Amino acid sequence: MNGNELLPNWNEGAAKAAILEFVESVTEPGASYVPPVDRIATFDNDGTLWCEKPQYVQVGLLLGRWKAMIEADPAKAKEQPYKALAENDLSWFSNLYSHLPDLLKGIGEAYEGYTVEAFERAVLEFFATATHPTLGTPYTKVGYQPMRELLDLLHARDFLVFICSGGGRDFMRPVSEQLYGVPRERVIGTAAIVEFRNGDLYHTKDIEEPVDDGTGKPAHIWMRTGRKPLLACGNADGDVPMLETARFSILIRHDDASREFAYDTGAEKALAEARERGWTVVSMQDDFKVVFDL
Amino acid sequence: MNGNELLPNWNEGAAKAAILEFVESVTEPGASYVPPVDRIATFDNDGTLWCEKPQYVQVGLLLGRWKAMIEADPAKAKEQPYKALAENDLSWFSNLYSHLPDLLKGIGEAYEGYTVEAFERAVLEFFATATHPTLGTPYTKVGYQPMRELLDLLHARDFLVFICSGGGRDFMRPVSEQLYGVPRERVIGTAAIVEFRNGDLYHTKDIEEPVDDGTGKPAHIWMRTGRKPLLACGNADGDVPMLETARFSILIRHDDASREFAYDTGAEKALAEARERGWTVVSMQDDFKVVFDL
Repeated sequence: MNGNELLPNWNEGAAKAAILEFVESVTEPGASYVPPVDRIATFDNDGTLWCEKPQYVQVGLLLGRWKAMIEADPAKAKEQPYKALAENDLSWFSNLYSHLPDLLKGIGEAYEGYTVEAFERAVLEFFATATHPTLGTPYTKVGYQPMRELLDLLHARDFLVFICSGGGRDFMRPVSEQLYGVPRERVIGTAAIVEFRNGDLYHTKDIEEPVDDGTGKPAHIWMRTGRKPLLACGNADGDVPMLETARFSILIRHDDASREFAYDTGAEKALAEARERGWTVVSMQDDFKVVFDL
Repeated sequence: MNGNELLPNWNEGAAKAAILEFVESVTEPGASYVPPVDRIATFDNDGTLWCEKPQYVQVGLLLGRWKAMIEADPAKAKEQPYKALAENDLSWFSNLYSHLPDLLKGIGEAYEGYTVEAFERAVLEFFATATHPTLGTPYTKVGYQPMRELLDLLHARDFLVFICSGGGRDFMRPVSEQLYGVPRERVIGTAAIVEFRNGDLYHTKDIEEPVDDGTGKPAHIWMRTGRKPLLACGNADGDVPMLETARFSILIRHDDASREFAYDTGAEKALAEARERGWTVVSMQDDFKVVFDL
């Protein structure tokens, strides 16, 4: 395949070559050919398809809602996770995964009782108005341009691309088509359990188990697709089980302090496994010609 | 649209006319046009796309497995649901929904610890060997020919067709493409929770809540598609909430004792709602030229 045309914002190198070689091997006639119906590709979202620093995009929506909840009921500020917000406790927010039960409680309570349509309106309003704190652009612009090109390549080669986010499924669905060309039925992620009452669907305060991270990712992917991924792509330790189940695994490494952020924290195990298992590691600094299309 | 070409095994009548008119209205330019991305069609399976009498097809698989479990551990015959099988208690099996907790326990225990691949092999072996008790044909032949034609029409009109079964999702996925032209990622249904361990996915004994029936159906459809159905089709009271959420709703009525089975039991509420809400009721006797393609 002609790499210049196909992934124009990827630099020539081992990562680009390995990706193009794999895609060609499973889509062209030959021993490794895979029929389109089984070309399942799964992509983590935060840190893989778009920027997850200085905080997960969805946290922006959540903090706005928690602020309104505290204003409506100041007693809430005494309990977590609202307390962390009320006290501007940056250390609490700097390591969200260590407060997972409180975080999930806050996520569930934030939109309990919303119809699915009302939640979607809240999400769309957020994307229409909020901007990234350091890039200064709307969040719909914080997707990585080279990754969008990879999705385009996979779409052109008849892969079924699924977004498999540790974050909110219903948070990404309203914008997944616009951002990535991925329709909403192919967005997998952590989600509130919805309940049908009197003709409408409502968010409950309960979050589906397992959450779509770590060992929950291959479980979610199976539940939604009935297959293991042919190609999977992630950037963090929570993506390791998903990457373990794929035929071809790609790990995005955040090593570009000038154009994005440089951090291996939270990806130590993923990087070690990538070395051991021969996964394709993508250096944002070396492999991406541009990071954003701002 | 030319009805003769499109649904050749449907008799001319109100049901066929209403279906063709609706499909044309949302796929041809005009005030009711719906873009392909939102053309979600959801079909119940048992009794809607294939025969559910004298027992649900999946029960055949289950009884074979329960028999083997009792042989391996005769003490099992003292507890339900195994007791009902050991004692050949036909009344127990004639109304499965009244024993739902015991039934779900038996379904979960039957394949606990199986990898998803081992379960698929068991399903494929069942379909390769078992035959329908009264029709005498493989179960892959008990789909309704007119309904397959309806699915073909919807596929040709760029609908995304989902099978939304009260029965087992992982039971239908291995054969959904062959039976209905629906790929496995578009099969929604009740399912065991799967768990990732050491690189493999295993069935646990726990069944996902809610089960994919009654109010669980629109919840499952939302979880899997992020939309309410544009068109939905069912045959029983457990399909009512799904049918309530659709723009166009079709109810299959089992009124053909000579070619299939005649029963309104379990569909009383659905038939009443269909009258009240103007749903399209399909009489298998009057609207189907043939029932099966045996």
